[in-house]
Amino acid sequence: MSEGIFYGVGVGPGDPELLTLRAARIIGEADLVVVPRPESDKESAAWSIAREHIREGCPVIKLVFPMTRDSALLDEAWERAAREIEGHLRRGIKVVFLTVGDPMLYSTYIYIFRRIKEAGCTVHTVPGVPSFCAAAAAAGMPLAEGDEKMAVVTWNARSPLSAGELEPFSSLVIMKASADLDGIIDTLQAAGFLQHSVLASRCGYADERVETELRSLKGTAVPYFSLILARKEEK
Amino acid sequence: MSEGIFYGVGVGPGDPELLTLRAARIIGEADLVVVPRPESDKESAAWSIAREHIREGCPVIKLVFPMTRDSALLDEAWERAAREIEGHLRRGIKVVFLTVGDPMLYSTYIYIFRRIKEAGCTVHTVPGVPSFCAAAAAAGMPLAEGDEKMAVVTWNARSPLSAGELEPFSSLVIMKASADLDGIIDTLQAAGFLQHSVLASRCGYADERVETELRSLKGTAVPYFSLILARKEEK
Repeated sequence: MSEGIFYGVGVGPGDPELLTLRAARIIGEADLVVVPRPESDKESAAWSIAREHIREGCPVIKLVFPMTRDSALLDEAWERAAREIEGHLRRGIKVVFLTVGDPMLYSTYIYIFRRIKEAGCTVHTVPGVPSFCAAAAAAGMPLAEGDEKMAVVTWNARSPLSAGELEPFSSLVIMKASADLDGIIDTLQAAGFLQHSVLASRCGYADERVETELRSLKGTAVPYFSLILARKEEK
Repeated sequence: MSEGIFYGVGVGPGDPELLTLRAARIIGEADLVVVPRPESDKESAAWSIAREHIREGCPVIKLVFPMTRDSALLDEAWERAAREIEGHLRRGIKVVFLTVGDPMLYSTYIYIFRRIKEAGCTVHTVPGVPSFCAAAAAAGMPLAEGDEKMAVVTWNARSPLSAGELEPFSSLVIMKASADLDGIIDTLQAAGFLQHSVLASRCGYADERVETELRSLKGTAVPYFSLILARKEEK
């Protein structure tokens, strides 16, 4: 029995035109497409971005991953998904897992990737454009240049960064900035990053939003996937 | 007289198939293509990656930027390049500047972008796949997951990071790791990152190289554009 190949394909930040040529080709050659879908959403974002490249008649499995911090529940969901994918791979087919942004950055793919690799299957990862690169392009805000150092972080009240910890860095990308927005804004101010900061959401989508007055967002609610780009000084 | 449009297009890390669909389209619609070229290289890397999408007969300007740390010399080269590009834009044409990786990350494009924008011209930046995403895919090494924090840095003997400064971070990307390789390896060891680290060079090219035994590279010379991915612990 021939072994299949598992592809983890980054479909970029949201705009279907930000797929790579390779992503488009691999998706078109898939025997089976697997997309993650949070319980809360009716549709999979990765599927929406890539749908026009999926071959007509190609089966698509939408795997629901719970939106929870309960690691036992998450483990169980990832394990179940990996075993289902492994079953398909044992039939010798090409299984393509779609993931928003880049597959190796803050994605559910990472948990599936490890399990499929440990099972001894062949895995190819196709890199994608991360959301923060699309946000930087949309905001016209360089991320890092010359000898600068950049921090890319998720941020919530349990794992913030202090102004002191930010000291070596010239720029900062905060993913999922919605959980502790007020705390973030206070720290950016203390660390000298607030003046040159933007909050971006839905970058690469038609309803893309870029806010430059972060101070005015204090106390407001912003979308879950909002990200913040901040620089210590304008050059 | 109509105004032109300036496009800064990221062509990705090296493999022509890692261009985005938008990059391929914008390059094909260019009236003029501008590519940076270091003095030392005969060919422009960005041009090689994108060449098959450049319309036949489309003029290509290769701008030479000096490989120097002399900021006056660099400023002069950037200023000259920007004025040349601005001259073409005043003719009302589409000028496409190609840059390896993502345009807003450690690229010469940033210096041109600022000047063209200050001159009041219309600028669109097309994000690309950064080299570290391609390296992570090639090495099968996740960059960041869950609540993890990542640092993306250039590193030379004048601006290193200490083990203490690395404390809040789970993973680390070091661009242009060739200048202080021994210092980097010592710090990675002290900070607990050495065991799970790789050095990657020419990712996305046919002669891509991924080294997992960094300790054995001490005292050796590695290519200028080598990058290091490192994680504090294996999960």
